[in-house]
Amino acid sequence: MKLLFINGVNLNMTGMREKGVYGSQTLDEINAEIAAHFKDDICEFFQSNIEGEICEQIHNAANEGFDGIVLNAGAYTHYSIAIRDAIAAVKTPVVEVHMSNVHAREEFRHTSVLSVVCKGVILGFGKNSYILAGESFKL
Amino acid sequence: MKLLFINGVNLNMTGMREKGVYGSQTLDEINAEIAAHFKDDICEFFQSNIEGEICEQIHNAANEGFDGIVLNAGAYTHYSIAIRDAIAAVKTPVVEVHMSNVHAREEFRHTSVLSVVCKGVILGFGKNSYILAGESFKL
Amino acid sequence: MKLLFINGVNLNMTGMREKGVYGSQTLDEINAEIAAHFKDDICEFFQSNIEGEICEQIHNAANEGFDGIVLNAGAYTHYSIAIRDAIAAVKTPVVEVHMSNVHAREEFRHTSVLSVVCKGVILGFGKNSYILAGESFKL
Amino acid sequence: MKLLFINGVNLNMTGMREKGVYGSQTLDEINAEIAAHFKDDICEFFQSNIEGEICEQIHNAANEGFDGIVLNAGAYTHYSIAIRDAIAAVKTPVVEVHMSNVHAREEFRHTSVLSVVCKGVILGFGKNSYILAGESFKL
Amino acid sequence: MKLLFINGVNLNMTGMREKGVYGSQTLDEINAEIAAHFKDDICEFFQSNIEGEICEQIHNAANEGFDGIVLNAGAYTHYSIAIRDAIAAVKTPVVEVHMSNVHAREEFRHTSVLSVVCKGVILGFGKNSYILAGESFKL
Amino acid sequence: MKLLFINGVNLNMTGMREKGVYGSQTLDEINAEIAAHFKDDICEFFQSNIEGEICEQIHNAANEGFDGIVLNAGAYTHYSIAIRDAIAAVKTPVVEVHMSNVHAREEFRHTSVLSVVCKGVILGFGKNSYILAGESFKL
Amino acid sequence: MKLLFINGVNLNMTGMREKGVYGSQTLDEINAEIAAHFKDDICEFFQSNIEGEICEQIHNAANEGFDGIVLNAGAYTHYSIAIRDAIAAVKTPVVEVHMSNVHAREEFRHTSVLSVVCKGVILGFGKNSYILAGESFKL
Amino acid sequence: MKLLFINGVNLNMTGMREKGVYGSQTLDEINAEIAAHFKDDICEFFQSNIEGEICEQIHNAANEGFDGIVLNAGAYTHYSIAIRDAIAAVKTPVVEVHMSNVHAREEFRHTSVLSVVCKGVILGFGKNSYILAGESFKL
Amino acid sequence: MKLLFINGVNLNMTGMREKGVYGSQTLDEINAEIAAHFKDDICEFFQSNIEGEICEQIHNAANEGFDGIVLNAGAYTHYSIAIRDAIAAVKTPVVEVHMSNVHAREEFRHTSVLSVVCKGVILGFGKNSYILAGESFKL
Amino acid sequence: MKLLFINGVNLNMTGMREKGVYGSQTLDEINAEIAAHFKDDICEFFQSNIEGEICEQIHNAANEGFDGIVLNAGAYTHYSIAIRDAIAAVKTPVVEVHMSNVHAREEFRHTSVLSVVCKGVILGFGKNSYILAGESFKL
Amino acid sequence: MKLLFINGVNLNMTGMREKGVYGSQTLDEINAEIAAHFKDDICEFFQSNIEGEICEQIHNAANEGFDGIVLNAGAYTHYSIAIRDAIAAVKTPVVEVHMSNVHAREEFRHTSVLSVVCKGVILGFGKNSYILAGESFKL
Amino acid sequence: MKLLFINGVNLNMTGMREKGVYGSQTLDEINAEIAAHFKDDICEFFQSNIEGEICEQIHNAANEGFDGIVLNAGAYTHYSIAIRDAIAAVKTPVVEVHMSNVHAREEFRHTSVLSVVCKGVILGFGKNSYILAGESFKL
Repeated sequence: MKLLFINGVNLNMTGMREKGVYGSQTLDEINAEIAAHFKDDICEFFQSNIEGEICEQIHNAANEGFDGIVLNAGAYTHYSIAIRDAIAAVKTPVVEVHMSNVHAREEFRHTSVLSVVCKGVILGFGKNSYILAGESFKL
Repeated sequence: MKLLFINGVNLNMTGMREKGVYGSQTLDEINAEIAAHFKDDICEFFQSNIEGEICEQIHNAANEGFDGIVLNAGAYTHYSIAIRDAIAAVKTPVVEVHMSNVHAREEFRHTSVLSVVCKGVILGFGKNSYILAGESFKL
Repeated sequence: MKLLFINGVNLNMTGMREKGVYGSQTLDEINAEIAAHFKDDICEFFQSNIEGEICEQIHNAANEGFDGIVLNAGAYTHYSIAIRDAIAAVKTPVVEVHMSNVHAREEFRHTSVLSVVCKGVILGFGKNSYILAGESFKL
Repeated sequence: MKLLFINGVNLNMTGMREKGVYGSQTLDEINAEIAAHFKDDICEFFQSNIEGEICEQIHNAANEGFDGIVLNAGAYTHYSIAIRDAIAAVKTPVVEVHMSNVHAREEFRHTSVLSVVCKGVILGFGKNSYILAGESFKL
Repeated sequence: MKLLFINGVNLNMTGMREKGVYGSQTLDEINAEIAAHFKDDICEFFQSNIEGEICEQIHNAANEGFDGIVLNAGAYTHYSIAIRDAIAAVKTPVVEVHMSNVHAREEFRHTSVLSVVCKGVILGFGKNSYILAGESFKL
Repeated sequence: MKLLFINGVNLNMTGMREKGVYGSQTLDEINAEIAAHFKDDICEFFQSNIEGEICEQIHNAANEGFDGIVLNAGAYTHYSIAIRDAIAAVKTPVVEVHMSNVHAREEFRHTSVLSVVCKGVILGFGKNSYILAGESFKL
Repeated sequence: MKLLFINGVNLNMTGMREKGVYGSQTLDEINAEIAAHFKDDICEFFQSNIEGEICEQIHNAANEGFDGIVLNAGAYTHYSIAIRDAIAAVKTPVVEVHMSNVHAREEFRHTSVLSVVCKGVILGFGKNSYILAGESFKL
Repeated sequence: MKLLFINGVNLNMTGMREKGVYGSQTLDEINAEIAAHFKDDICEFFQSNIEGEICEQIHNAANEGFDGIVLNAGAYTHYSIAIRDAIAAVKTPVVEVHMSNVHAREEFRHTSVLSVVCKGVILGFGKNSYILAGESFKL
Repeated sequence: MKLLFINGVNLNMTGMREKGVYGSQTLDEINAEIAAHFKDDICEFFQSNIEGEICEQIHNAANEGFDGIVLNAGAYTHYSIAIRDAIAAVKTPVVEVHMSNVHAREEFRHTSVLSVVCKGVILGFGKNSYILAGESFKL
Repeated sequence: MKLLFINGVNLNMTGMREKGVYGSQTLDEINAEIAAHFKDDICEFFQSNIEGEICEQIHNAANEGFDGIVLNAGAYTHYSIAIRDAIAAVKTPVVEVHMSNVHAREEFRHTSVLSVVCKGVILGFGKNSYILAGESFKL
Repeated sequence: MKLLFINGVNLNMTGMREKGVYGSQTLDEINAEIAAHFKDDICEFFQSNIEGEICEQIHNAANEGFDGIVLNAGAYTHYSIAIRDAIAAVKTPVVEVHMSNVHAREEFRHTSVLSVVCKGVILGFGKNSYILAGESFKL
Repeated sequence: MKLLFINGVNLNMTGMREKGVYGSQTLDEINAEIAAHFKDDICEFFQSNIEGEICEQIHNAANEGFDGIVLNAGAYTHYSIAIRDAIAAVKTPVVEVHMSNVHAREEFRHTSVLSVVCKGVILGFGKNSYILAGESFKL
């Protein structure tokens, strides 16, 4: 299996920002753990702070032969209709993930404009959200 | 590990109702698959159509030694502050699950009054939502 | 024809509560009149104050060979997505009825979460709402 | 008994417009069936696309000795406070009807500004909505 | 001075409808009192139940040399952007009147879409609302 | 007749503030014109910027034998439930006035919390709003 | 090609009303320009201030062999569900037009209840909105 | 005097759940204190997690000769129109109580659908809320 | 114990205004009854119609050695963030009271901006609301 | 004439994404048709998925001598105040276009934050929306 | 330069109330620091808890020759249209200040009804907000 | 001191766009004035139209040793949760500035999603907003 893990805006700061919420591992360390977990699969990792670049990466996923995308869009989750439309424009299934339980945080984080076009949503399990999402493609 | 899978209102009709949404397996068949998946763990299954009975089952979970609860409250998800308060009243972690992607259905299904007090949420993977939720306790 | 008349919460108090709104006949007396009106048909009557029991009675209607359900859910009309989903889960047609004109009462009574999944709605005719609903299955 | 059946805007297109919703009988054919059903009563039929003319017809109903009005105001149902006030201005009882289940259609069709001043509401039974409404005056 | 008094929908029922709200004088009797009050001025009276005809009467007012229009649009007050635009389209000043205190009635009567384009508003004085409005053009 | 004209907050600035809206006459000059207009009646004038003092003046109006109150509460119109309750607490009829057409100004000026408990409302006629309101007590 | 241009309420005042918004050409002059532009096609023009008459004209368009309707409903655009349903009731395609950019005017003009059932929308180009709409049927 | 103290959903967990909010006494201990306080009166205590059972207990209160009901409905306070209607259906006066100051907690706890049909409301005094409510029947 | 009873705007009219709501005892008579009830405690009484003066009285309560404040702010309850902040600024506990059941009156009376910073709320018991509030400090 | 056609986010996927909505021609093919249609004019084409780059292209349009901009901003239409401000910052007129009838799609697509600052809007005509918009500059 | 610093309701409690938010300096101490900072200018200080007195102080500022007003209206910031209108009524520029970052506190503190008529807003810098506001008049 | 001044989208057009709002100085000229004002400090200036680049610049500020950030995010102020989260992710204090008084402009400009995570806000002083913000770090 070939899986693409996309992290959106500010997630390059993971491990450096609000550690109470996101833990103290860096994104690279988390990605390494994910790759180790799925050692029999091909895992690729992409991070961008730019909304349009995330759209383009999603556009390209089908051509690049990915079986599934695990997407943590960060703050863009809550307002990027652009990313929503990018997901709807491709056939590759996307699973939306969040490390924190967004429903236990500020009101505006309770709304995702992406969920409606995703296959499923997994949130609240820290770095394990990525792993469970990856597993969902293998069940 | 000892896991409790609680299904709420109308879920006894699974496999008999809207098959396009829920598939054609009955709840018993799904539960059997879950038990098989977690064959090294203790899995118990509870279903009730009565809001107050679901609350009571949650109240009892700690005394009964469960390590985690996987909860699909059905329609009560969207308005049962009673179940919300029951979850908040116990220390046993609860993972909210839905078989369908509720965000791709009617507007009122986009709101869960339970998520804020759950450990995490997993939705959209059919019967595998239960399995991923069970797995989340083992990572 | 075999018809099921379901009365929901507080309707056991009919004839005893707000007589200006509901009249002074008891539910038993009303049911007797209905049965007399449909004397060539099989009429069964069910009343419960418990939301989950009303769902279960709806679940069972198909197995029990009813041709139609006449449902006055009482206060549950306005918020029970559980009953809504129960109606959607069965093939037996349901007609929603109210004795009073709910649109001439408090604002919150103007909204029914059930209507969307019912075959039709009849309201405002006192006990005759039940009779007209029963007749609707015979036209 | 003397009954007046009023049909509002666009209902002259019945049988010609959205047949999936309204069936393929014309309004004249439906009216003929209604008249046949109530063959022992006096039935009169009025249709207008003009809001003010519908108001005037309601104003005149009492003088013309009608025992009841069956009103399908069409789209005016959702915003014509003018028709609402016309109903409130006369003593002749009015029953609001709709052929389709308006609650299973677009959001804006869920609100009727007329219901509050009507005796009752009957909707969802196709042409039989008119017949049940007429029957309601005879119970 | 030449004054035009326009009455809108259902106001032809004045004196016949809700007497607690509107009194028991007919519109003709009220108009006669107004004409008597302004006996040194030219008063003309127009009533229509049809929104478009009210618009046209407003369009014509300037050509017909009226110094002012006193307008009680009835229920159209609350939603007729058509009449609003008709008022904005002419230079003749319009004073909006209501016999009842609309702010002490149903919520929807608290909003007038016409006031913004009128010179002023006078409401709550019964038939004297018309007289005060007429006087306003003479101060 | 004995009439009380109450002016609320900032109206002491009339003639000095936004002259495009309120004209260039001072409040004293306007009051003098009003007194001249009603020269056969007793007119008293009260102005305060303090909400509670306006309430107290209304409380006292009945004891002081006023036949009517003409009230321009200024900005308090839009939020002072205190003044609303003061009006409701006394039997002396109150007419609400505004010099400008508040409906043609900012959105928040379209709502008056006072109108519901007043006898009537007159607005948009500049200083003549006071005179028309005074006249309303004499018709 | 046979095209029908329908103008709704107050548009007979074009050239006479708010010239800053609508220009100083009369509707007849604009229609003449349109006819000249489409000199090889059959153009018919209809204007009415009465909502129900506009509905009827739309009803008749198919029978009269029109290939398309260009509709400027004026103020009815914003609330006439009646016209909306008339458009939905016929197969002749309708293009909604406005001379002004309604989105740069009052808030209530930003909403059209008609657009959803039209083929397309063209607005902001003055009289050229009609011409572009007519052209759209010929591409 | 004969008083009925009804506790609703999750209140059986009192003393075991969120002790910061509800204290560490169990419901039985609190009830014992209440009974001791009102030692010259008859106090009965009822707790249920099931909405319909709470309704039925209220229905029965009059027959059972209670002079007053003290009701802490728990989470049902915020949405149970069923319990609201049960209170309205009986003549026995009901006082709504809450141990915590619900207005200082989550937004959704600020709304009670029950208050409108209760005699009064007492909240924020911990277990003393019950005692003050009981006292209210004796003043 | 030393208790301060503060009455806000219009409460000086108690016994003179809406007697159906507030009874016919004057505030002085009610205060005398309260003082008699708490004859072993020191009771002081303050009434003002001016929002800022109520704030100042609350500011001073701590310096003056009061053990508790019983506050009926009248209409200011619904919008005075000033009083809310005054309560939050002092350590003396405040109990909010209302004589009437505000939840059974107009919609705007259902919201209190004060409750969140008070110790508790007692409403609906007429003059006994003050007495129960005073008692709450002694339990 | 020199025209600039700007396509925003995801429009590079045209012809590859939701073909039911957007047809099966690629953006390059559509652009070629547009260029052919305006063969006597200079047409330039720009596409970007990045909001800020679209802003910059608009900034540069005046310097580059364009007579008009045809802008399909894609999903950014619904929330990019940045692009709105870019349009307002330049003098070159902009026509907003959409290929689909956005008013017949999801609710959030009914709102454009751009329209208010554009010269006009054209939507619903597929690729012809671009051509009509280009024509609008030539009338 | 002559500057007026106005502090509104409850700000006399500064240093005594919520020290976490406002620090432990009293208002007099803060004013002394401000005066010291602007030692070459004339600084006057005014504090009142009464809305109408704040309005009057603003009315008088021009006559008293102030070059600018620094206004911290306290809680009145959020609802006093009276103070807003007082600011609009004078030509002296007003800068709104807050010591705390009101946007990081309760929702209702995020709205200021004053900002629209002020020259500018400065908030979040503790006592330095006053100093920066004073400096703004000198740049 | 080392200060970073970040300007967001469209601010590169300052001096060229809406001069009534923003003045006629270019951003470079304004930056030069700021640098001159803070001649004893290190000032750096960054402008980008791309949301993600602004986030990245904020991420880097701490590593680059800045003592404070002055941020004018332009239109992104109103919806960029991405920038909000970037600010929250770093320890460097950020002061939000606007040249214009955004509260005196369109409704949507009244809301900033950034303020809650900033140290303070300064707006309405033209280019001096930047200078006052810089000064705030030095008090």
